[in-house]
Amino acid sequence: MIHLDALNTGSGSDFVAALAEIFEAAPWVAERTLAARPFPTVAALHEAMMGALVSASMDEQLAFLRGHPELGGKVARAGTMAPASRDEQGALGLDRLSDGEFARFESMNAAYAARFGFPFIIAVRRHTRDSILAQFERRLTHTPEAELAAALTEISHITRLRLVVAVEGPGTPKTEGRLSTHVLDVVAGRPAGGVNLVLREIGKSAQSVLAEAVTNADGRTDAPLMSGAPLRIGRYEIAFHIGAYFAASGAVSADPPFLDVVPLRFAIAEPEGHYHVPLLASPWSYSTYRGS
Amino acid sequence: MIHLDALNTGSGSDFVAALAEIFEAAPWVAERTLAARPFPTVAALHEAMMGALVSASMDEQLAFLRGHPELGGKVARAGTMAPASRDEQGALGLDRLSDGEFARFESMNAAYAARFGFPFIIAVRRHTRDSILAQFERRLTHTPEAELAAALTEISHITRLRLVVAVEGPGTPKTEGRLSTHVLDVVAGRPAGGVNLVLREIGKSAQSVLAEAVTNADGRTDAPLMSGAPLRIGRYEIAFHIGAYFAASGAVSADPPFLDVVPLRFAIAEPEGHYHVPLLASPWSYSTYRGS
Amino acid sequence: MIHLDALNTGSGSDFVAALAEIFEAAPWVAERTLAARPFPTVAALHEAMMGALVSASMDEQLAFLRGHPELGGKVARAGTMAPASRDEQGALGLDRLSDGEFARFESMNAAYAARFGFPFIIAVRRHTRDSILAQFERRLTHTPEAELAAALTEISHITRLRLVVAVEGPGTPKTEGRLSTHVLDVVAGRPAGGVNLVLREIGKSAQSVLAEAVTNADGRTDAPLMSGAPLRIGRYEIAFHIGAYFAASGAVSADPPFLDVVPLRFAIAEPEGHYHVPLLASPWSYSTYRGS
Amino acid sequence: MIHLDALNTGSGSDFVAALAEIFEAAPWVAERTLAARPFPTVAALHEAMMGALVSASMDEQLAFLRGHPELGGKVARAGTMAPASRDEQGALGLDRLSDGEFARFESMNAAYAARFGFPFIIAVRRHTRDSILAQFERRLTHTPEAELAAALTEISHITRLRLVVAVEGPGTPKTEGRLSTHVLDVVAGRPAGGVNLVLREIGKSAQSVLAEAVTNADGRTDAPLMSGAPLRIGRYEIAFHIGAYFAASGAVSADPPFLDVVPLRFAIAEPEGHYHVPLLASPWSYSTYRGS
Repeated sequence: MIHLDALNTGSGSDFVAALAEIFEAAPWVAERTLAARPFPTVAALHEAMMGALVSASMDEQLAFLRGHPELGGKVARAGTMAPASRDEQGALGLDRLSDGEFARFESMNAAYAARFGFPFIIAVRRHTRDSILAQFERRLTHTPEAELAAALTEISHITRLRLVVAVEGPGTPKTEGRLSTHVLDVVAGRPAGGVNLVLREIGKSAQSVLAEAVTNADGRTDAPLMSGAPLRIGRYEIAFHIGAYFAASGAVSADPPFLDVVPLRFAIAEPEGHYHVPLLASPWSYSTYRGS
Repeated sequence: MIHLDALNTGSGSDFVAALAEIFEAAPWVAERTLAARPFPTVAALHEAMMGALVSASMDEQLAFLRGHPELGGKVARAGTMAPASRDEQGALGLDRLSDGEFARFESMNAAYAARFGFPFIIAVRRHTRDSILAQFERRLTHTPEAELAAALTEISHITRLRLVVAVEGPGTPKTEGRLSTHVLDVVAGRPAGGVNLVLREIGKSAQSVLAEAVTNADGRTDAPLMSGAPLRIGRYEIAFHIGAYFAASGAVSADPPFLDVVPLRFAIAEPEGHYHVPLLASPWSYSTYRGS
Repeated sequence: MIHLDALNTGSGSDFVAALAEIFEAAPWVAERTLAARPFPTVAALHEAMMGALVSASMDEQLAFLRGHPELGGKVARAGTMAPASRDEQGALGLDRLSDGEFARFESMNAAYAARFGFPFIIAVRRHTRDSILAQFERRLTHTPEAELAAALTEISHITRLRLVVAVEGPGTPKTEGRLSTHVLDVVAGRPAGGVNLVLREIGKSAQSVLAEAVTNADGRTDAPLMSGAPLRIGRYEIAFHIGAYFAASGAVSADPPFLDVVPLRFAIAEPEGHYHVPLLASPWSYSTYRGS
Repeated sequence: MIHLDALNTGSGSDFVAALAEIFEAAPWVAERTLAARPFPTVAALHEAMMGALVSASMDEQLAFLRGHPELGGKVARAGTMAPASRDEQGALGLDRLSDGEFARFESMNAAYAARFGFPFIIAVRRHTRDSILAQFERRLTHTPEAELAAALTEISHITRLRLVVAVEGPGTPKTEGRLSTHVLDVVAGRPAGGVNLVLREIGKSAQSVLAEAVTNADGRTDAPLMSGAPLRIGRYEIAFHIGAYFAASGAVSADPPFLDVVPLRFAIAEPEGHYHVPLLASPWSYSTYRGS
């Protein structure tokens, strides 16, 4: 990791070398940003680099976009992408698609390339597989102008994520989201400690457990349910085992208890947002909301 | 269907003939109830018949209990039970068990018979298959005295259900439960009409759709989600498609919407109770409770 | 009370005589409605009468409006208004204003007459004194055209209220509102019976108790808190004594209890609407909403 | 302020001099605590001093209690109490009682002294005037044994509050409470910023404004509504001006708005507790709870 000060005061070639990988296979972006030094913040550096891309000629922009690998395509299967792209696609299993899924991606990739002339680009780390597929289908309906803008917005997300791990310094742009919860026992008027809960992604194909936790004395989990990275756009469920909690607390219920495992299902749409999804419960009622 | 008045004023042999099938293969229960005529209510008639059973000798009571078919057992498979029993067991598929399930029932039936000397009896129409299995396992742990009392309580439920379809008249005992819902839009401060919802039983093995409905202008369903019979003890889910509702109403949400299909999961423990399970929702919050 | 059928089939002079008082001092409204007989509904009769007024010449309309008494003015004090007007104004105490209030009404009446050329007319039975004053101030800012329309809308409300007590028959227009409540105990999952509650109007000057009630076993009051007449536009409070309820039920709370008398404050804006304002409470939490 | 280390390592006479005022007019409490040095925490020091009091002879304990001024009595009026007592009583206006109130306190003081032989002692800083009167009436019904224990518990509260401003060091006992709030807009799914709110004590005699605030972008107030001291046991109201908030946000409501100024009324029973009393609101619904 290099410090922003070093980039601001070092040689031009060091600057370009340090930032060459941020924009995939396009060191000219760093080169054209050089003259705007010094940058007061990492965010300002990122904006300047995006400015260099956006003010490049249309041919240069298209060439840059064409330098990106297809999503879930043959290159992904072959594992010959740039390491950052490989890691990003691999985390969603896009390098290990079933034959049917592979065919679907190939079909969309082909349609997309035919329509727009460059591969479908998306900041994979901000998405679940479901939301990538939804975006892919939606963006295939765009006009070329709208889609070019959409692709550049994704490039901005992708490069911001790369920049914040490459450069440290003041004004680092926000790239991390957070999902938290707390459980309140409205019978006793206090936080509900000792409640088991499970966070799952609720995808079209499968459900995967993302976190399991037990609430502490403050009714919260010791760590956020998700943090330290962008939240992936998608659908989630937190299942709260409040039947067991109230049985242990001696609260009045029924047999079987009216409420046992309470599922809260919600979607995350802002990868850099804070989602607080609490449960306020009695054995006979509950409420939830997006809090802060 | 015979009227209570006819039973009260007709001949003794007509009385016994009319009620001979209420207590399975035990016309003597009707015979011993005869002297207590007239009965002011159908409920009083039922209490008197149960009184005749409970005040019979222990040998008579055990012989009566032994006259019942096993649950999910060979007789059920063979279809040679009394018609009422056959219908009751058939509704839960207890006459069509898989080999594994059949083996489990056979094993529990054998253990139960060895411990208590009569077959496991339960008012099947008040239960889901899950709650029958849960009850079976629990009752195997009873003392003989506690289990005899439990069996007679079930006989009371079974015969009450038979009596109310055989005899009409005042004071009919309550045998029907009701599940209802309503949806309130707290953004607009009015009932949410046009919300699609689906009621499912959430069993350990499978989920079956019990009702699909759309809320009317009053935010309610035109008919209760369940009614006209005992509610089956078990676990249920109502899934409310409020994402589509709010999208149509133009309320502020996100993409994808924070709330889309909201599942409310709850258990029914009182077959003759009224369960009102409403949803009060905005695009970002909801609450529910057991209402009345 | 005369039946619509009698109006439809009787003589023209009987028709006019029966309806002469509906539009204050303007029997010509009934006369001009006569030709449109028969009327299928009471609502249709009312619409026809309003149609006769609205299609009269501007001079006739202004003369009609000028035939109305001032609100809270000298005529009200002197008690020389038509009986219906006297009762309506008297219910709000507009015939017994303090000298300061009288002066304020006189001042607004003078300003209104100077601006519009007819007295301020409002369907008093649909308003609290506060909302009359608020409307008076707002309507003083109207253009003459907007204010003429506002005055005719009020005439429609006034005459509808008079018509429904003068004429019976099918299709009676809705003139009554309703305020109801229920209390739910979310600790026990059942209606909260035995809760004392008090309904007050919360006016700028004073608070008057409109109803006191105790919830029944269904958590409701035996009768609506207000019904049988238009609800008066204004601000209200229901105070629920849930501290005493939970103390009696043995629920966990504190000393003094976190919640004792819970006030719900809300405004009524639709005199003919149904306002259901429930309280869902534990000793430590509560919620409310406009229900249906 | 003296540091615990200095007390632990200094001369015995310095120790006694520094702590002589903690227990009113009873330097012997400090003297008898001296031998137990060193104290690892300020809380341990306080416990040791209370231990010295409780293990003193009954005559010494009674003499100590008798050294306290009456509450709201002649001494308070004359202003001749120890400065700490004067400040504590003065903050509630107990030195400026009306003649009627003075007479009531005199009467209770006389009854108390006749029954128990020492003056009524209470940690004034943990109470509102209402709760002092309620406690006074309740404690008059105690047995002498229960009341001696109650008086010593109050002494513990009083001296803890004095000690934490006299001595700094590790393990300072908790003497401060906190009241906070936040407002959530469930229509927009975000904190409600810019909401005016007013905190009042709701006493039997009068209402006094304790804080006025506007919520910030996070829906919270920049500072807790009360903090930095014990919360006074008593009844409170926070009035939230959400009608104005929703009018400004363009949310759907009515005229007048269904909800305008929403009052949340609650009691504080734990002076050292954290009370979080949020409001989750739409223009047509709201909920609150004691949170954490």
